[in-house]
Amino acid sequence: EIMAAVGAALTEGPLKGRHVLVTSGPTHEPIDPVRYIANRSSGAQGTAIAAALRDLGARVTFVTGPASVPPPGGVTVVRVETAQEMAGVVKATLPVDAAVFAAAVADWRVANAAGQKMKKDGTGTLPMLEFAENPDILAGVAQMGAGRPRLVVGFAAETETVEAHATAKRARKGCDWIVANDVSPGTGIMGGSENAVVLITADGAEVWPRMAKPEVARRLAARIAAALA
Amino acid sequence: EIMAAVGAALTEGPLKGRHVLVTSGPTHEPIDPVRYIANRSSGAQGTAIAAALRDLGARVTFVTGPASVPPPGGVTVVRVETAQEMAGVVKATLPVDAAVFAAAVADWRVANAAGQKMKKDGTGTLPMLEFAENPDILAGVAQMGAGRPRLVVGFAAETETVEAHATAKRARKGCDWIVANDVSPGTGIMGGSENAVVLITADGAEVWPRMAKPEVARRLAARIAAALA
Repeated sequence: EIMAAVGAALTEGPLKGRHVLVTSGPTHEPIDPVRYIANRSSGAQGTAIAAALRDLGARVTFVTGPASVPPPGGVTVVRVETAQEMAGVVKATLPVDAAVFAAAVADWRVANAAGQKMKKDGTGTLPMLEFAENPDILAGVAQMGAGRPRLVVGFAAETETVEAHATAKRARKGCDWIVANDVSPGTGIMGGSENAVVLITADGAEVWPRMAKPEVARRLAARIAAALA
Repeated sequence: EIMAAVGAALTEGPLKGRHVLVTSGPTHEPIDPVRYIANRSSGAQGTAIAAALRDLGARVTFVTGPASVPPPGGVTVVRVETAQEMAGVVKATLPVDAAVFAAAVADWRVANAAGQKMKKDGTGTLPMLEFAENPDILAGVAQMGAGRPRLVVGFAAETETVEAHATAKRARKGCDWIVANDVSPGTGIMGGSENAVVLITADGAEVWPRMAKPEVARRLAARIAAALA
């Protein structure tokens, strides 16, 4: 990690002088002091992307939820737990040249989270969770006027009709690219070491072959460097 | 770990010839293919208890949810995800001489878990989760007639009035002992390296000083050995 950091500082890559924001990992949304809603994101893909951007010379701010893989060296790491915290850190990090939103942000938080541990009361009464929609970090940044990053990249984790859903998501969010993948349990992708992505741009859909997550990251970083050149 | 396993096999400790079941870790209750309800248990205390029982010569079956610490060596490890899976494995493991239920089992599961990822539909409609009560593993074993372990130990993770809640829990569940601790966020206990427990037995409440989780485990294992002697 120290060598990686030193390497990054010395790199004269195509992204030298660029500041790139990368979000990564899951968010945790509290139900009460001991319970929370989580998702199966390990943070592996976002971490690899941050490392690949660093290797091309970028200054990277890495905003990560509670991931199961450690953050890369040579980047500025900001740890958050909830979607609301992540939204606040992203806002505070702007302006940036490019933003890659690889985190699996919870769409909803629990609106009536309890201050004390919820307990069974013996009557068989079941908990009632009320939800509130979390801030849409991707759309918020993609639809900024002044100060919008030149390149805004979103992710789509789908379990069905991946390309159609992702193409619709790109239009709806107003971002430049969507990196879409199929996270159905059978694929082993969420939490696994490989990824099979479809890159959705203004030019349409590119289906990438299944490959290791660091290789997906290197390809994406190279595309980002080309887009910012 | 190999040395620990060899050590356990050779141990002539006070629990030699005894079979002890230990549950540990959180359970994860699926909401849809990518989201789940979790809790902050790291599995550290249950893992330390299994190791301490092994060191006293016991044959240990260790039933663990998705914990963040690795299971001990020299024990039989069975990995589960949900409370229902844990209940099934516990039932299949009986009879045992003693059972220590250190897992932080979810009280409720999502009754209407979705087969596909739940998506925002753009109308602002919020998800409705319906809950069902999970099997009460501790009470089920504690209230068995024939085949009940000689010693049944439950855990209570409380955030308020720990001793009173735990004493009531012992009576309600029908177990022999309750190991109670205060998991309020300020204590740093859930997910941390230390524990401050109150042991509730038929004789009343013993307040143990705050100490490292392995030390809590050694004390508890020694008490279990004495109870089974």
